[in-house]
Amino acid sequence: MTTVGFIGLGVMGSPMSIHLVRAGFDVVGFNRTAAKTAALVEAGGRAAASVGEAVASAEVVALMLPDTPDVVGVLSGPQGVFTHARAGALIIDFSTIRPDVTAELAGNAADHGLRYLDAPVSGGEAGAKAGTLSVMVGGDAADVAEAQAIFDAVGTTIVHVGPHGAGQTVKAANQLIVAGTIELMAEALVFLEAHGVDTDAALDVLGGGLAGSRVLEQKRTNMLTRTFDPGFRIDLHHKDLGIVLDAARQAEVVTPVTALVAQLMAAARAAGDGSLDHSALLRTVERLSGR
Amino acid sequence: MTTVGFIGLGVMGSPMSIHLVRAGFDVVGFNRTAAKTAALVEAGGRAAASVGEAVASAEVVALMLPDTPDVVGVLSGPQGVFTHARAGALIIDFSTIRPDVTAELAGNAADHGLRYLDAPVSGGEAGAKAGTLSVMVGGDAADVAEAQAIFDAVGTTIVHVGPHGAGQTVKAANQLIVAGTIELMAEALVFLEAHGVDTDAALDVLGGGLAGSRVLEQKRTNMLTRTFDPGFRIDLHHKDLGIVLDAARQAEVVTPVTALVAQLMAAARAAGDGSLDHSALLRTVERLSGR
Amino acid sequence: MTTVGFIGLGVMGSPMSIHLVRAGFDVVGFNRTAAKTAALVEAGGRAAASVGEAVASAEVVALMLPDTPDVVGVLSGPQGVFTHARAGALIIDFSTIRPDVTAELAGNAADHGLRYLDAPVSGGEAGAKAGTLSVMVGGDAADVAEAQAIFDAVGTTIVHVGPHGAGQTVKAANQLIVAGTIELMAEALVFLEAHGVDTDAALDVLGGGLAGSRVLEQKRTNMLTRTFDPGFRIDLHHKDLGIVLDAARQAEVVTPVTALVAQLMAAARAAGDGSLDHSALLRTVERLSGR
Amino acid sequence: MTTVGFIGLGVMGSPMSIHLVRAGFDVVGFNRTAAKTAALVEAGGRAAASVGEAVASAEVVALMLPDTPDVVGVLSGPQGVFTHARAGALIIDFSTIRPDVTAELAGNAADHGLRYLDAPVSGGEAGAKAGTLSVMVGGDAADVAEAQAIFDAVGTTIVHVGPHGAGQTVKAANQLIVAGTIELMAEALVFLEAHGVDTDAALDVLGGGLAGSRVLEQKRTNMLTRTFDPGFRIDLHHKDLGIVLDAARQAEVVTPVTALVAQLMAAARAAGDGSLDHSALLRTVERLSGR
Repeated sequence: MTTVGFIGLGVMGSPMSIHLVRAGFDVVGFNRTAAKTAALVEAGGRAAASVGEAVASAEVVALMLPDTPDVVGVLSGPQGVFTHARAGALIIDFSTIRPDVTAELAGNAADHGLRYLDAPVSGGEAGAKAGTLSVMVGGDAADVAEAQAIFDAVGTTIVHVGPHGAGQTVKAANQLIVAGTIELMAEALVFLEAHGVDTDAALDVLGGGLAGSRVLEQKRTNMLTRTFDPGFRIDLHHKDLGIVLDAARQAEVVTPVTALVAQLMAAARAAGDGSLDHSALLRTVERLSGR
Repeated sequence: MTTVGFIGLGVMGSPMSIHLVRAGFDVVGFNRTAAKTAALVEAGGRAAASVGEAVASAEVVALMLPDTPDVVGVLSGPQGVFTHARAGALIIDFSTIRPDVTAELAGNAADHGLRYLDAPVSGGEAGAKAGTLSVMVGGDAADVAEAQAIFDAVGTTIVHVGPHGAGQTVKAANQLIVAGTIELMAEALVFLEAHGVDTDAALDVLGGGLAGSRVLEQKRTNMLTRTFDPGFRIDLHHKDLGIVLDAARQAEVVTPVTALVAQLMAAARAAGDGSLDHSALLRTVERLSGR
Repeated sequence: MTTVGFIGLGVMGSPMSIHLVRAGFDVVGFNRTAAKTAALVEAGGRAAASVGEAVASAEVVALMLPDTPDVVGVLSGPQGVFTHARAGALIIDFSTIRPDVTAELAGNAADHGLRYLDAPVSGGEAGAKAGTLSVMVGGDAADVAEAQAIFDAVGTTIVHVGPHGAGQTVKAANQLIVAGTIELMAEALVFLEAHGVDTDAALDVLGGGLAGSRVLEQKRTNMLTRTFDPGFRIDLHHKDLGIVLDAARQAEVVTPVTALVAQLMAAARAAGDGSLDHSALLRTVERLSGR
Repeated sequence: MTTVGFIGLGVMGSPMSIHLVRAGFDVVGFNRTAAKTAALVEAGGRAAASVGEAVASAEVVALMLPDTPDVVGVLSGPQGVFTHARAGALIIDFSTIRPDVTAELAGNAADHGLRYLDAPVSGGEAGAKAGTLSVMVGGDAADVAEAQAIFDAVGTTIVHVGPHGAGQTVKAANQLIVAGTIELMAEALVFLEAHGVDTDAALDVLGGGLAGSRVLEQKRTNMLTRTFDPGFRIDLHHKDLGIVLDAARQAEVVTPVTALVAQLMAAARAAGDGSLDHSALLRTVERLSGR
């Protein structure tokens, strides 16, 4: 029975860790706010009092943390994974963080005799609960093969996209497209409403043609009814667009529309909508249009 | 047997008129370049030597013309539809033109005792040939009902979206979303390629999640292989974005991302890519990134 | 003594017409709202009851009207200048309108045996009152020479920039630069204030270097004190940016930053700031930043 | 006689260090490429073989380095200023770096018993040679007063704009405005040329009104003649806009136009124009417009 040390039991990590228990893994969870281990324990997992305790006997160390500095801290910090993990353990970072830092961390892991996969996910809280996440994996093929059962426990679409960091790069591209598509939907909707068009009929026909998208399907009700319970929060998408733009700059890629979308996401956050679903970007377009 | 006068037998109008013949309509076609009536005649339709001749005995007058001034000229010009059509005839404008001009033309039609529907389509040349267009219809419900057999002959998704002009407004929203989504795909692809990611695997996983879209599915091969035979030409999408921005300005709607996408489409055209498929917007992002 | 028919006695036209009286011209003014002729009459000019009456005996016809359709109406309309002006009269259009329409109107004027100069001005209400406007003149050199005394009466910088329409093109470029520079100042100020910097000292040093500009000098107090009495209204600058973008599109010039600035000016107007000075674009940046 | 250790004798630092010699300071210079100390020595200064040697006996330590990591390395590195400087020495950082890192470094300096001023300059190579730079100073008033003779030796406009980091913040605002103004000039010029206007006459009248700016005056010839010898290189302005956008994001300020200008500057660099003067941003607008 494989032991998985799982660090970060928030809105995503908690249901993912429980799926691992159900798939037969021995899961030892740690979370900074200890109360969040309760659901895992109830599902048959164990709670650890420290990162070190969580990973000490684990063959696999899974991370699901908010941002780049959190991952760096948990891995490289004085009480971190690099110093406490078993020799040869496989680290799987499900967090969405900077691709360049990921590549560096993979190198550091190797220096400590550890293996590393970046495996950011898409599908949000709903996908985490349903175990239907998409997983974008970067790293060595042998490690990906070894981790397949872990990935299958939490997701349905598992794709190995390249070497260390490639998973994060693809996730960045995902966030670029999703944010931009929401903004386009928002501009289209405000445009249609301002012209007095029947938006429900309009979205039917738009959705049936080349303008159709998963965002149109899944965020349509949110946007038409102005119901913006997350879902995926604007604060997080704002953070992710920062990662996208930094990575674009490093690769000397020019992405003018994404740069502008990032400004509008920042405006949404500045307006106090940070804890709403990212489809609430609609409210920024409405405010700009005085509606 | 209903007679349809069909004005404009270009890359879209020609196959549409032939579908009408096959559906049992008596179609009399006119095109400025007379040679383009040949395919219609071969399919069993008739050719007219003037707009007046094409519409003189028609219960329905269909238009499929490049731009707003073309439609205005054919309808209001000295030898135009308004003066030559039978009393009570139903004009169906399949062209993509300005919503405000459309509303005006519908009023002028009524002044001449004629009825009017705006019915722009999406689905491109392929949809026109297959008879699977989406049709966005604006006008009176009774006229839409009467035209149903016509619409069914050329399309599969027929939606009545509102009063005169609403069809054009929804088509404008369609063009807004499609152009923007192509640009986002282009930025994502150049970003992925610059980072050395396996783009084929990446598009698999992106397409399976919230980043998925009809543009990703249908333009993926064009973009990955840099094969940009139209399809829908950049020149035409550039024209349509002009319509979108004018209509947004009139409605006092602020659409910053669309305004920027329109500039990039203009840049594609300025670079000489006007006759390529709109997915060639990828080339503009590549040029900006020096790739 | 040269007779000048002056059409349009608003906030700009009224002081300009009075400067002409003071410079020794016989000025016959017309305004749609008749009460606005009072100041001209008091200064020694005459009031006309119609465009026709104003221009019947005039060697020079001056126009200062809000927008393109106004100029077209006054010139080409049934009771307009083209039908009522004396043979050989020189029309000087001080309004800011579309360059392409201007070139057409100049041709129409010639068809009626009339001469034409486009002569849009910058310097605003203050410049009009002080007689210190800048005048950008398009048309034939001989006509410019003949009009010199008129121009000298209302302005201090008079430049002949090219053929018919060139004056309007240069005015469009002026509006492009001014709107963009105000937006840059706004972004810089909100940036400085958010970082808690002494903005007064900062503007001193910025103004002394390559960042210095007439906008920084003249709009500094407005922006630092949030006092936005016009000046030049956002509504008008919004109209002018529409002219700029149309003219750029016609010339196939790509101006991404101007397109974005135009969206922000539209947002300022949509937020209800249309009647404030254009430096109130600062308020749009503040709203975007949640400040 | 005050001894100044001067680290970084590049295109800016070399003439600045020589001005200090001429003003009576005992200057000990260090540069990674040792040959660059020659000009200083010829002017009467001294050359050091290491940072430690340069600062060992200095009351003032001046830095003029390319980017944030360079300054961090020279100050905090193992052979750095923090460990080798005399107790109580005053560090003056003339480099343009991140405001947040600057504030941190000032704190670190205090921990080592050292004092710190950030004093980025504007005016470029020409200003450095002429000793007419503008200096934006952040830090304690007493330290600014003590450094006045240093500042007077290299610049003419010296402004204390706030606490540690404020100098860098104001410099960032400067770079924001300058880059944007160059882009506006570029868009205006391409617009004017595309319309066939006499650009020389046009710039005369534009420069005389509200569109006038130092950029228009100083970069006019470069742009009209397409002569882009630096001056201030695109590579450096690209770096500086990265600092601006990071600082804006940290302060939660939304700067859409600056974000877009930064993308165009990145495009200039990607096109191979990185070593040209920043006014060569004109070439990016020309390429976008296919001219």
